[in-house]
Amino acid sequence: MTPVTVLGLGPMGSALASAFAAKGHPTTVWNRTPGRAPAGTREAASVRDAAGPLTLVCVIDYAAAASILDPVALKGHTLVNLTADAPHRAREMAAWAASHGIAYLDGSILTPVPTIGTASGVVIFSGPREVYAEHEATLAALGVTTHLGEEIGRAAAFDVALLDFFWTSMTGLVHAFALAGREGVSPGELAPFLTGIGAILPPIVEEFARDLATGEHPGDESTIVSARAGMAHVVETADRHGLDAAVLRAALDLADRAIEGGRGRDSYSALI
Amino acid sequence: MTPVTVLGLGPMGSALASAFAAKGHPTTVWNRTPGRAPAGTREAASVRDAAGPLTLVCVIDYAAAASILDPVALKGHTLVNLTADAPHRAREMAAWAASHGIAYLDGSILTPVPTIGTASGVVIFSGPREVYAEHEATLAALGVTTHLGEEIGRAAAFDVALLDFFWTSMTGLVHAFALAGREGVSPGELAPFLTGIGAILPPIVEEFARDLATGEHPGDESTIVSARAGMAHVVETADRHGLDAAVLRAALDLADRAIEGGRGRDSYSALI
Repeated sequence: MTPVTVLGLGPMGSALASAFAAKGHPTTVWNRTPGRAPAGTREAASVRDAAGPLTLVCVIDYAAAASILDPVALKGHTLVNLTADAPHRAREMAAWAASHGIAYLDGSILTPVPTIGTASGVVIFSGPREVYAEHEATLAALGVTTHLGEEIGRAAAFDVALLDFFWTSMTGLVHAFALAGREGVSPGELAPFLTGIGAILPPIVEEFARDLATGEHPGDESTIVSARAGMAHVVETADRHGLDAAVLRAALDLADRAIEGGRGRDSYSALI
Repeated sequence: MTPVTVLGLGPMGSALASAFAAKGHPTTVWNRTPGRAPAGTREAASVRDAAGPLTLVCVIDYAAAASILDPVALKGHTLVNLTADAPHRAREMAAWAASHGIAYLDGSILTPVPTIGTASGVVIFSGPREVYAEHEATLAALGVTTHLGEEIGRAAAFDVALLDFFWTSMTGLVHAFALAGREGVSPGELAPFLTGIGAILPPIVEEFARDLATGEHPGDESTIVSARAGMAHVVETADRHGLDAAVLRAALDLADRAIEGGRGRDSYSALI
């Protein structure tokens, strides 16, 4: 079994290390604050001591990663950066790695901590195909892995787009609970209906991808004008309750601009 | 079969009328612009001519509904308002209906046009229990129907909260496609991963409802600080591409305020 090193033992880094250890990989870990090594892993005293042929890093952002990575210890090894950040930083880090003789893959984890090490875990990678091929079997310990291409920023590009959808939706979710609360609707009453709304999003994803592929945005079922009306009812209700509605107000402003631009009778996909 | 009247023949009103006609209800329709009667329905020349014992209205908002509803023609009948609007307007319209001797139910349609008349259609109602009971069997032609209680604003309260989640999420979706496009990621490549993100939202709904029920917002798997870091990568990438990021920037501002308020290590549910 290939030895694996994991740098960073936040909730996600710890899950990564545990997943490798569970599959029988000799797993070395390091964290700035010591004493967090998961069961079955060996805690190293320093990054230099920890670094090995396949070293993963998962910290808060690339600045934090850069501050701990030791180019001397990593030279000749493969570094897999599973820290989330903007695509241009992945490109910068790839240049840094190349200048130090470090093979580099960039990756993004798309599913929550409890999925890591299970068939529900989804991790995407970009970078040199032969480096990915060399470590693919080991990385499969994390879940379902996909190589998206050689352009190093690609995993982060997918990641930021997916985070965009995810965190915007999550903010809509917390606001929905808050607004319902002001109207006397309890979280337990609302939850089943919110789940139902969540279920109608995936078919809309497919519909919008088709609209973009064809360049047609037919508004025969729902238009930007009707979307705008729905959003206005939400904003108005939030305002009446003194509840901050800045997020949906910004969405309403996008819809208004599309309507002013003559796209009001198109599908919401025309906003793209 | 109970005769049914549908006022308003936009895409949703037409779907409602078709669903009643398909179940064999004598269905009368009226629309401001004539000539849109779906197959199997009878088009009336005026609202007064159209109004019957069970009259549904589905137009753009309650101001539009109020402008067409004829209190003389509706007196002694039941009016079911499936127009979407803010809860306080449902309360106003119920008062208007009561003053004219009209039995009134307020309702909201939670699923898209193609679901109406199928088992996937979801319609919620509020208002007097006996009025709902009288028409429940007829309204079941639309899909799965639920009576949420007698307080007339309740259906609209659920609806605005659900629209809040839905349209905020939809705006995140269109922005994700736009951001991916700037990074050279095609809609077809991104769509399967967006669908995957959609699938992780329902369990989070349940988790947040539990957090609210217990008043505990444990950040052991994901914190507001880490959410904030993810959102910042998205906003930074959008900014680099000159792509408007006002929606997620407003979400980031909410997270910042929560962090300033000492909730950074809590779950995102603490924002509620």
